[in-house]
Amino acid sequence: MAKPTNPTRIGLAGLAVMGQNLALNIAEKGFPISVYNRTTSKVDETVERAKLEGNLPLYGYHDPESFIQSIQKPRVVIMLVKAGAPVDQTIKTLSAYLEKGDCIIDGGNEWYENTERREKEVAELGLLYLGMGVSGGEEGARNGPSLMPGGSFEAYKYIEDIVLKVAAQVDSGPCVTYIGKGGSGNFVKMVHNGIEYGDMQLIAEAYDVLKSVGKLSNEELQSVFTEWNKGELLSFLIEITADIFGIKDDKGDGYLVDKVLDKTGMKGTGKWTIQQAAELSVPAPTIEASLDARFLSGLKEERVEAAKVFKSSDFVDLSADKAIDKQKLIDDVRKALYAAKICSYAQGMNLIRAKSIEKGWDLKLGELARIWKGGCIIRAIFLDRIKQAYDRNPGLANLLVDPEFAKEIIDRQSAWRRVVCLAINSGISTPGMSASLAYFDSYRRASLPANLVQAQRDYFGAHTYERVDIEGSYHTEWFKLAKQSRI
Amino acid sequence: MAKPTNPTRIGLAGLAVMGQNLALNIAEKGFPISVYNRTTSKVDETVERAKLEGNLPLYGYHDPESFIQSIQKPRVVIMLVKAGAPVDQTIKTLSAYLEKGDCIIDGGNEWYENTERREKEVAELGLLYLGMGVSGGEEGARNGPSLMPGGSFEAYKYIEDIVLKVAAQVDSGPCVTYIGKGGSGNFVKMVHNGIEYGDMQLIAEAYDVLKSVGKLSNEELQSVFTEWNKGELLSFLIEITADIFGIKDDKGDGYLVDKVLDKTGMKGTGKWTIQQAAELSVPAPTIEASLDARFLSGLKEERVEAAKVFKSSDFVDLSADKAIDKQKLIDDVRKALYAAKICSYAQGMNLIRAKSIEKGWDLKLGELARIWKGGCIIRAIFLDRIKQAYDRNPGLANLLVDPEFAKEIIDRQSAWRRVVCLAINSGISTPGMSASLAYFDSYRRASLPANLVQAQRDYFGAHTYERVDIEGSYHTEWFKLAKQSRI
Repeated sequence: MAKPTNPTRIGLAGLAVMGQNLALNIAEKGFPISVYNRTTSKVDETVERAKLEGNLPLYGYHDPESFIQSIQKPRVVIMLVKAGAPVDQTIKTLSAYLEKGDCIIDGGNEWYENTERREKEVAELGLLYLGMGVSGGEEGARNGPSLMPGGSFEAYKYIEDIVLKVAAQVDSGPCVTYIGKGGSGNFVKMVHNGIEYGDMQLIAEAYDVLKSVGKLSNEELQSVFTEWNKGELLSFLIEITADIFGIKDDKGDGYLVDKVLDKTGMKGTGKWTIQQAAELSVPAPTIEASLDARFLSGLKEERVEAAKVFKSSDFVDLSADKAIDKQKLIDDVRKALYAAKICSYAQGMNLIRAKSIEKGWDLKLGELARIWKGGCIIRAIFLDRIKQAYDRNPGLANLLVDPEFAKEIIDRQSAWRRVVCLAINSGISTPGMSASLAYFDSYRRASLPANLVQAQRDYFGAHTYERVDIEGSYHTEWFKLAKQSRI
Repeated sequence: MAKPTNPTRIGLAGLAVMGQNLALNIAEKGFPISVYNRTTSKVDETVERAKLEGNLPLYGYHDPESFIQSIQKPRVVIMLVKAGAPVDQTIKTLSAYLEKGDCIIDGGNEWYENTERREKEVAELGLLYLGMGVSGGEEGARNGPSLMPGGSFEAYKYIEDIVLKVAAQVDSGPCVTYIGKGGSGNFVKMVHNGIEYGDMQLIAEAYDVLKSVGKLSNEELQSVFTEWNKGELLSFLIEITADIFGIKDDKGDGYLVDKVLDKTGMKGTGKWTIQQAAELSVPAPTIEASLDARFLSGLKEERVEAAKVFKSSDFVDLSADKAIDKQKLIDDVRKALYAAKICSYAQGMNLIRAKSIEKGWDLKLGELARIWKGGCIIRAIFLDRIKQAYDRNPGLANLLVDPEFAKEIIDRQSAWRRVVCLAINSGISTPGMSASLAYFDSYRRASLPANLVQAQRDYFGAHTYERVDIEGSYHTEWFKLAKQSRI
């Protein structure tokens, strides 16, 4: 293989599709890059692609030593390997040849604590470390992802010129910023994915209502989503949803979406998001509902059996009783989707803030919304509004109470309530939209029935309670008093 | 203090209220017991109570050595100290004097993995170990708790005669059984608590709908819950809820429940439950909603502010428009509560089963329902039905599809849908009831809109999909195809 005349600017190890594409992107932006993979055929494949895609300055190596030697000092190597043990293995391989002051970057969806452990481990070898969330899938990696680097600020400075060019470019600049210390880059990417679960679930529910209640055809759905993608919902996920409804099955009649099995896979970041939300006492019902929907989707065989037990004739189907005004329904569903989406993002942003406070990361929520505007899966015009909300008030307790969002919700809430009730009365589920609505209706209530729960806890467990009228902590001998007042 | 003439049968260390009460219970059942606490005043207090409560055979010790020496061999010591580090500290203190073949039992709400670690650690000293969930609060500990011992079966045999008498006694026997190996006793107790969160939240929502929409007074609520406690909802939590509504404020006018601040505390087992559900891919939306409701209750100051932003005049209040038929509403809410409760228990039982499979614990779900019938916080006539469901079919995939439960749900689902929609249209939230309903409506649907989500995942991440009609795993170049079909 061709060797560079001078040392390359950076290296990349791990040449599955994401790694290949990110390497090609870097090379295309004018940064000569060395690449390495344990399975060497992947190296050759990448070199071949670099040639085909425009003779890009990309150089392949079959052994880690010559790979590392080919990079200019201080060396920077991005890893794109499977999270967990393969990352540790790759670090071990690379660090054997790296020198003091060199830097390793993990571009995978890694658990943030692993990054923090590794940052400490490689520091003992004098190496710097970054955990960098990369969002945008294969296409984003190739043409401009959203990048979330966290860890050593010194290391970030080594690569700043590269990431500023490699990242997606939008009106407000490149979709990258130094996130913060430690595992903050991985954590932010994790929550990004949790939010992505929420978006996808809410869109699926909109589809379900329009299809199952509104009886829209795929052609109509394509047209609805295409239309939606011109307004407040403009986003990558809405765009690809419109695309999906337009694609015919290449193996039979009809549309491909109807042939796709209703089982959704997942890779762990959604699970971590809701586990962290619980850990940090941050309510995240929309994201939880999205994860549960994936779990339930996996129980296909059980669902088929359950559907026999609960025949649809057992259900009142309002859609059969009343004529549905399609245009009104489409409009309502759009509004419900948008309002529910605000709640989902409020949960995600508040989870990031809670972690930032716990870890002292000092994360800038508005800045995160900005770097998600391009490149990543959740990219959307909507993120501008979030950025603006935090610009208006960096200490905003919840996106819901931002004046602009509040107004948008008030304008849409009747539609939102109509859609959820219509779904309920039609016997279909909108777990994400209704979890969002319950979140909204709980958050905006000065008084919740939690007084009863706390009274119960004090009754059976002497957990004490506070009072609405007098300061302090109280315990009542409920049982003794009750004996006198039972009816 | 008086010393026993013979060695005592068992020891108990950790004399906060739960520990005191359990020790007194054991002594009362005729088992001489030694007790110890680091803060020695608690020892004297317990000895004094034993005297007052009937000269019970309970003996106090101020130092761990004489405490241990006073117990017959092989010695058994129950610890009731705070979970985490205090347990490790207590084990260290006790094991200095324990001998090979002796046994330590942790009666706290411990994380099951800690129990498994400790079981191994003390095994190196030749000691046996049990992690025993104890439910029933202070009152249960004193008069008969539900006990969930897991770990060494040999150790269980040492204490079987004691726990069979100490546990709550119900028609089907004592509320205790050997749960299984390792940390299974703690795990089952943890899920019990998660289910308890669900029950309490669902009751709070019933209260909220009846109070906020139905405008029921506390007197009426007391009467409704008293009535409910005579039927299918008969349970400890319904009983104490009726009690609570009858108790007048001793510091002012009106009822105490209205003076209790709507902020609910928690101690960690609910959080663990939903984290484990996520870990094991078990949908648990009702329990999640309950935990989120506690988190949201804690944001009292934010809620008060949000209530100013979203004025109630912004909401359509159906209850104001239509005359509510109180009796119909009460009936509907009872049915909704019962149906939602089935879903919550289905989630909890399936979580236990998933863990049992993962760990090879071979847990008997029907037997767990049986030992929860008395003593514990979730004790209810309803648990008989769960036991019967698993007796009918030990391999039951989900409680929902048990013929009896299925019939009960079908009979109640119209009421359930009416209540959730009424709440939604009244602007109050019923997160638990609606999460249960979405769970039901997802579980009983042969086809969910998850096909769209999986198509999206394949579109942006090449995650592949299965088809409804042909075996295998497929990937489509959606983007390329879409370019031709965009409208």
